[in-house]
Amino acid sequence: MSSPEPVRFHFDYLSPYAYLAWQALPEIAARHGREVVAVPTLFAALLGAAGTKGPAEIPAKRVYVFKDAMRSAHALGVPFAPPPAHPFNPLLALRVSSLDLDEAVRARVVSRLFAATWGGGAGVDGEATVRALLDELGLDGAAMVREASSDATKARLRAATDAAIAAGAFGVPTMFVDGELFWGLDSLRHVDARLAGRDPIDDVDLSRWAHTPATAKRRGS
Amino acid sequence: MSSPEPVRFHFDYLSPYAYLAWQALPEIAARHGREVVAVPTLFAALLGAAGTKGPAEIPAKRVYVFKDAMRSAHALGVPFAPPPAHPFNPLLALRVSSLDLDEAVRARVVSRLFAATWGGGAGVDGEATVRALLDELGLDGAAMVREASSDATKARLRAATDAAIAAGAFGVPTMFVDGELFWGLDSLRHVDARLAGRDPIDDVDLSRWAHTPATAKRRGS
Repeated sequence: MSSPEPVRFHFDYLSPYAYLAWQALPEIAARHGREVVAVPTLFAALLGAAGTKGPAEIPAKRVYVFKDAMRSAHALGVPFAPPPAHPFNPLLALRVSSLDLDEAVRARVVSRLFAATWGGGAGVDGEATVRALLDELGLDGAAMVREASSDATKARLRAATDAAIAAGAFGVPTMFVDGELFWGLDSLRHVDARLAGRDPIDDVDLSRWAHTPATAKRRGS
Repeated sequence: MSSPEPVRFHFDYLSPYAYLAWQALPEIAARHGREVVAVPTLFAALLGAAGTKGPAEIPAKRVYVFKDAMRSAHALGVPFAPPPAHPFNPLLALRVSSLDLDEAVRARVVSRLFAATWGGGAGVDGEATVRALLDELGLDGAAMVREASSDATKARLRAATDAAIAAGAFGVPTMFVDGELFWGLDSLRHVDARLAGRDPIDDVDLSRWAHTPATAKRRGS
């Protein structure tokens, strides 16, 4: 018998909700006999494809989201603090996380870089910072940072992002459970229900929704 | 001793999450000795002020949000089905809900119009539909629909919307608990904690976040 498909976790270090979901998802998946595969994904490219703004780009929302994430972190019992800078350039951190690694090693890298970003660390902005974090894990930080800038690594991150967009992703974190898309920290309870075979989706109403006509349109939209 | 301040619930009939929050919020508030005051608010104006898109304006997100709302409705144990049209023009429904009414009457009107929209009803699009729903409540639907188009009523809805924007609202549902903003169905557990005096907001980290510098900016943003 083949192993069940892993849950695919699309994330960007920019997102506090991705950090929080990463703390909780592996345990939920494990309860249902599933692994989690972390897939670095460019949040900016998802926003660009959807033609919308990220929460940190709307001033009132930026403040709120941090409070909301802080409240959720408290509920989950995990450390949470703002990174030294935000938004920052996540490319190097995403690229080292996109290298051709054993998935267990990738998970340790992702956990370490997320902790450095949202768990009270020094951020993941800059080569020296990222290299030191990888070295702390017993990995060859210098080699990994060098490899991160190869065309193959850049292409791998871009391909994962394009695949996420093609599969319907519009934000992070996005989880795919056997091809079904879930978005956001607050969807974890629905992921749990899906993995347990208790997803209450009503295909009749869903099909009606897909064919619901619009009778109004916002000006300028 | 004066009564505690009611929880202010800003909503638009366009939002399935506002419908769901309206099913759950009064009971949460009541547990803490609070009333809920429903404040009709133009979602389109909030989006315009934030310069962003609504979920129904991003095709992949539109499908997802309906599924997510369906899952949440199931968890809450409340009926949920797509309205006959979406987006629809919510102005008349919002305006009759903005009339100078006793708050208990307003709550019944809001419940009835929400049920007609997301609870399997015939929608709230059109004068005849709205009038009939009000008549069913034993109200004078014809007079209310007439009064809804008065300049005073239009101004009241606009003023409530402007006040919400000024207070930091960027979407619906938005709840204000003693001036503190909460957004979205998933924030109800945080509303509950706040009302119980257990809001874990860390003012030190929040202040750091307010002063966190940006070291990157998305192209075109």
